[in-house]
Amino acid sequence: MELSTIYAPIEEELVRVEDMLRSVTRVDFSYLSELLDYSLQSSGKRIRPILTFLSGKFYNYDIDSLLTMATAVEVMHTATLIHDDAIDNSLVRRGRATVNKLWGEEQAVLLGDYLFAEAGALTARTGNLRIIRRFAATLKTISSGELNQAHNAFNIEQDRQQYFRRIAQKTADLFSLSTESGAVLSQAPEESIQILIDYGYNLGIAFQIVDDVLDFIGNEAKLGKPTGSDLTQGTLTLPSLIILERYPEDNPVKRLFRNKEGQDEIELAIELVRSSSIVDECYQVASDYCEKACRNLKQLPDNESRRSLVDLAEFIISRNK
Amino acid sequence: MELSTIYAPIEEELVRVEDMLRSVTRVDFSYLSELLDYSLQSSGKRIRPILTFLSGKFYNYDIDSLLTMATAVEVMHTATLIHDDAIDNSLVRRGRATVNKLWGEEQAVLLGDYLFAEAGALTARTGNLRIIRRFAATLKTISSGELNQAHNAFNIEQDRQQYFRRIAQKTADLFSLSTESGAVLSQAPEESIQILIDYGYNLGIAFQIVDDVLDFIGNEAKLGKPTGSDLTQGTLTLPSLIILERYPEDNPVKRLFRNKEGQDEIELAIELVRSSSIVDECYQVASDYCEKACRNLKQLPDNESRRSLVDLAEFIISRNK
Repeated sequence: MELSTIYAPIEEELVRVEDMLRSVTRVDFSYLSELLDYSLQSSGKRIRPILTFLSGKFYNYDIDSLLTMATAVEVMHTATLIHDDAIDNSLVRRGRATVNKLWGEEQAVLLGDYLFAEAGALTARTGNLRIIRRFAATLKTISSGELNQAHNAFNIEQDRQQYFRRIAQKTADLFSLSTESGAVLSQAPEESIQILIDYGYNLGIAFQIVDDVLDFIGNEAKLGKPTGSDLTQGTLTLPSLIILERYPEDNPVKRLFRNKEGQDEIELAIELVRSSSIVDECYQVASDYCEKACRNLKQLPDNESRRSLVDLAEFIISRNK
Repeated sequence: MELSTIYAPIEEELVRVEDMLRSVTRVDFSYLSELLDYSLQSSGKRIRPILTFLSGKFYNYDIDSLLTMATAVEVMHTATLIHDDAIDNSLVRRGRATVNKLWGEEQAVLLGDYLFAEAGALTARTGNLRIIRRFAATLKTISSGELNQAHNAFNIEQDRQQYFRRIAQKTADLFSLSTESGAVLSQAPEESIQILIDYGYNLGIAFQIVDDVLDFIGNEAKLGKPTGSDLTQGTLTLPSLIILERYPEDNPVKRLFRNKEGQDEIELAIELVRSSSIVDECYQVASDYCEKACRNLKQLPDNESRRSLVDLAEFIISRNK
C-alpha cells in the first residue's frame, strides 16, 4: 500500500495545501519568512491534512474551508514538533537539522508560538465556532500531554494505562481534530461526525504506537533521526513497557532509568526489542486500534474517500515494518 | 493617582477575574495545576483586564462575556511572560522565582503553550468571531515582535523607528486587543471601537516606554527584577537609543554591544541615563503617547469608566518615576 494511492482522490487538494503553506511563509519580516519556509516546506507525510480532506468528502463540502482547516492542522503539528525538538535538544528531524540546531532554542520557541497563532488564525478563518473551540481544546490537551511526559521522564513507575492516556493527548487528539473538522465543515450529520472522530482517535493511537516501535527498530536514514531517542529522553513507550513487564527483576530499561543515562543500556534495550516478539506484540495492539478505527466506517456513504480511510489504516500498520 | 481609585468602577469585576483565573488552575493533572496556580496567582497589576472592563462599560455589555475576555487577555499576557523568561533565562519576575528557574525551561515552554491555548479557549467562549480572529492575529504579532527582538540582540544598527515598531508588536497590540474586545463585546458603534483601539494602542506604547525607562532607573525591590536586564539581553530601548544618538563616537552601550558582555558598561549606561535628561526625554515621549491615547475619549459617553481611562493614562506616566 502506497500513500500516493491512498491520497489519489484528494491529490489536487494536497497540492493546494502546499500552496497555502507557502503563502503562510510570505511575511514582511524576511528573517521570519526564512524560518517559516524552512519549517513548513519539509518532507512530512501530511497525514493530518489528508485526514481532514478524506473526512470532508462525504457530504456537502466547501473545498476552501476544508483547505484552510487542512493547512491549520499541519501548521499546528509543525509548531508542536518545533517545540518538542527545542525542549529535547534534538538536532535532527526528518533527516534535516532542527530549527533549534540551526537558529537556537530561543528562536525555536518563538517560531513555534508564531505557528500556533497562525494555526489558530487559519482555524478562525473557517468561521466555525465548534471547530475553533475544539482547536483551542486540542492545543491544551497536547501541551498537557507533553508536560505529563516531561514530568514523568525517567520515572519507572508507569503502566500501559498512563502510556495510552499520554499518546491520546499527544497524538490522537490532533488526529481526531483533523477528522472532526473535515466532517463538521462538510455538514456531516452528528452520527457521521462521531464515526470520523472515533476513526481519527483510534488511528492516532495506532500511529503513535507504530512510531514508538520504529524508534526501536527503524532504519535511522529512513526515520530521519537517531533510534532510541525516547529512551534517551527517559520516555517509556509500549516496547519499553513490555520489557518492564516481561523482565521485572532486571532489564536494561530499569538500569537506564536508575542512572538516568547509559548508551549501552539503550542499545541493549533496542537489541532486546528487535530480537524478541515485542515488536509483533506492539503491532498487534496497533492493528487492533486500526480495526477499531475502521469498524463503523461502513455506515458512511460508500465512496473513494471511505476506501482511502480504510487503506490509510492499513498503511499505518505496514509503515516501515 | 492610585490604581485602586482608577479601578473603583470595576472593583467587583476584577474580583471575578481572580476567581476565573483560579478556575483555570483547577485541572485533573495535579502537577499542571500547581504550575498554573503559581503562574496565575501572581501580583501583576492586571492592567489588561482593567482595559477590557473599562472599555466595555460604555454601551450594551454582557458582564460574563467581558469577564471571560478580560481573563483571556491576562492569561495570554502571562503566557508571553513565561516564554520570555524561559528564553532569556531570567530568574526573577515580580520579586518571585520564574517558572523556568523553579521547574526548568522545558516545563516553562510547555506551560506557556498550555496558557496560550487556554487564552484561546476563553476567547473562543465569547463566540465573537471578530475578537477570535483578532486574538490569533495578536499572538502572531507578539511572537513576530519577540523574534525580531531576539534576532536583533546586540545589533547596534537600530533606530527609533524600529524600536517603536517592536514595542507596538510586543506590547501595544495586546493593549489594543484588550480595549477592542471590551468595545466589541459591548456592541459599541464602530467609531467608538476605533477610539478605544487607538487608546489601547497609544497607551501600550507609553506603558512600554516607561517600562523600558524603569529598567534603567527603577528600584530593584519595587521592579521585582534586576535593573539593566534589557542591556544584558542586548536589547536596545529608548534610553539606550538616546545614548547612541547623543554620544555617537563612543559610549557604554556601543562598547557593550561590541563585546556582547560587560557588567561595568551596563552600570555606566545606567549611571549615564540616571544623571542626565534622558529620563525626562523618555517620559516626555511617553506622555505624548498618553495624550494621543486620550485625545478622542471625549467622544465617548461621559461616565466613570471614561474618567478612569484618562486617569489610567496619567497613572502610567507617574508609575515609579
